[in-house]
Formats: sequence, C-alpha cells, structure tokens
Amino acid sequence: MPYDNRVVVLRLGHRPVRDKRVTTHLGLVARSFGASELILSTEDKAVVDSIRDVNKRWGGDFFVRLEMDWQKFLKSWQGVIVHLTMYGISVDDMIEEIRNKKDSILVVVGAEKIPPQVYKQATFNISIGSQPHSEVAALAIFLDRYFMGEQLKRDFSGDTKIIPSERRKKVIIKKRKKLTPSMAQAGE
Amino acid sequence: MPYDNRVVVLRLGHRPVRDKRVTTHLGLVARSFGASELILSTEDKAVVDSIRDVNKRWGGDFFVRLEMDWQKFLKSWQGVIVHLTMYGISVDDMIEEIRNKKDSILVVVGAEKIPPQVYKQATFNISIGSQPHSEVAALAIFLDRYFMGEQLKRDFSGDTKIIPSERRKKVIIKKRKKLTPSMAQAGE
Repeated sequence: MPYDNRVVVLRLGHRPVRDKRVTTHLGLVARSFGASELILSTEDKAVVDSIRDVNKRWGGDFFVRLEMDWQKFLKSWQGVIVHLTMYGISVDDMIEEIRNKKDSILVVVGAEKIPPQVYKQATFNISIGSQPHSEVAALAIFLDRYFMGEQLKRDFSGDTKIIPSERRKKVIIKKRKKLTPSMAQAGE
Repeated sequence: MPYDNRVVVLRLGHRPVRDKRVTTHLGLVARSFGASELILSTEDKAVVDSIRDVNKRWGGDFFVRLEMDWQKFLKSWQGVIVHLTMYGISVDDMIEEIRNKKDSILVVVGAEKIPPQVYKQATFNISIGSQPHSEVAALAIFLDRYFMGEQLKRDFSGDTKIIPSERRKKVIIKKRKKLTPSMAQAGE
C-alpha cells in the first residue's frame, strides 16, 4: 500500500457560511481515508477548529492549514496533481497509473466553479462517475481506490476508539494523566 | 451485479437549515451510485427540488419523497435494513453476506443522534471505518462496495451528458422537442 506517498488535499472555493459543513466533512474524510493534510484557500476558523478537535480526540497527526495564495502553491507543488472533477477521465481507468507514479499527490477539490487553469495544471483530471453528486463522495472514492481500501483498517491510536459491534456503541476513552501541582514541580 | 435488488436510502434526523447541503449531497450520491429512492423523515422543499432538478436534466428515474412516520415505515420494510454507523461492523466483513441476501435494501443514514431502536431493528449495523467522517462518504463507499464499482459506468440517458475528457469540459445537451400549438392540437 502506497502509504509512503504523502497525500495532501487542497480545497478551493470554500464559502464559509454555505460550505462550512461540507468542507468539514471533506476534511474528516481526508483524515480518515489516509491523507496527511487539508489545505483551505479561504479562512474558516470553525472548520479548522472542528477538524483539529477530532484529530486531538481520535488520534493521528492530520494537519489543517490555510494557503491564501493557492495558485503559487499549486505551481510549486513537487509531485502529482489530481483534480477531481465530473468532467475528467474515470478514476478506474487511471488509478493504477496514478499509484504507479510513486510520488506525493495533491488532490484538488473544488466547491464553486474552478478556474480553467486548474484543468491545465493538473497532472490528471479525474472523475468519479460523470453524474453530479458530491465532492465528499468523490474524495472518499478516490482515496479508497488509491489506498485499495486499506485506509479503513488503520489504527489512529487516539484517546477515543471504537470497538466495532453488531448492536451497541462500544467506545473506549483513555483518560489522560493530569499533572498535579507536585508532579508538575517535579518536572513530570 | 445486483441491480435487480432495489436500494432505498432513508435519511433520518435531517435539520433543514443545518443539513440542507449535506442531505442534498447524500441524495445525489444515492442517485448516482445506484439507489432508486431517497426518503426524508423531515420536510425540506429545497432539498427535494434540487434533487428532482438534477434528475430531470441528467436522467434516470430516481425518486425522492417524504415519510414523516419513519418508524412505521421501518417496521413495515420487507427486506434487509442496513444502518450505516461508525459503531457497526466493518463493511468489508459483511458486504458479501449483504449482497448474498438478494433482497431489497433499506440503507438508514442519520444526521443527528439516532434512536437506540434503529440499532436493534437493523439487520446489519455497518461501519465505513471506525473514525468520524461523513455520512455522504459512508453512503458512497457502501453503495460502491455493494455494486462493486459498476454503478459508476451506468448510463442515465439524460438530456445532459458528460463525455469524459483529459483537459476540457465536454458536455452534450439534448434539446427537447417543443410542442407547437398545431402539433399539440394534432395530439403529438
């Protein structure tokens, strides 16, 4: 499984009020489906905070940050650029070629209309079916194909952990050791 | 591919303002990933209208409707009930068993907290990984596994159609024949 290759998700065109929940879902899918980082091109503290909060409780070292000059960032990217768009070539026709590049991947996911230059700058314009649906679903299917389903088995070693169950909610929550004043003084 | 078995998606706990876009994404994923129907348990004209509009332009006979008494509906369901929840058994451990049932499937997808009875009434409580992410991604992965990726190749025979392309947007829009008054009178 190509876990060695870094996968970064760049979210373009996020509109804070309208897209808040969809972009949060996108970030959580990026995190739980094996990407290492989400980059927003528009500031939104609410989205950043809720993804960081999940990360803190559920583990892993997923990172979320802002890149206002996304065009410069796109130009400077060293690796493959995959633009997810319903107009692109089917993921199933290209996924092996993408995986075989053995290179870092920047996955570009748009909210509103994407500037034409992104179609040109992308190494691959990839569609997950050619019907309108959801960028959240598109990212999930792309990462699932790329990591061949292995991402779902990953252990995030977080303080909160679910034990899969047929009928109940089984959750383990590790309690962090709190520093008492004397322990803190002792340098622990 | 088990296209013969009807797959219906029941969306529980939709909150009109907060969930409008996420539920719309969910409906569009249901449609484009092979389900035949979306049932909402809360009225939301905006969601219904936007899914119907996609259907009209892009083809297929996907149906969206309201079922206020969802508990009665759940009890009367003849077939398998799959409840998607991060607390359930991994999709990859159960998908063959679900497919082998060769029966209609009701996929239950919650927004807010789901009443405990749903966990009991479900034939299967299924997780798409045990990390928090998105019900949109969960539905996409479940349907993708169930239909073994074949749903992405389906032709919806709509008036609007995309031709997959490496660098451009290639869209075909069929013009519907408009009835002129004389044609209408002639019964055409």
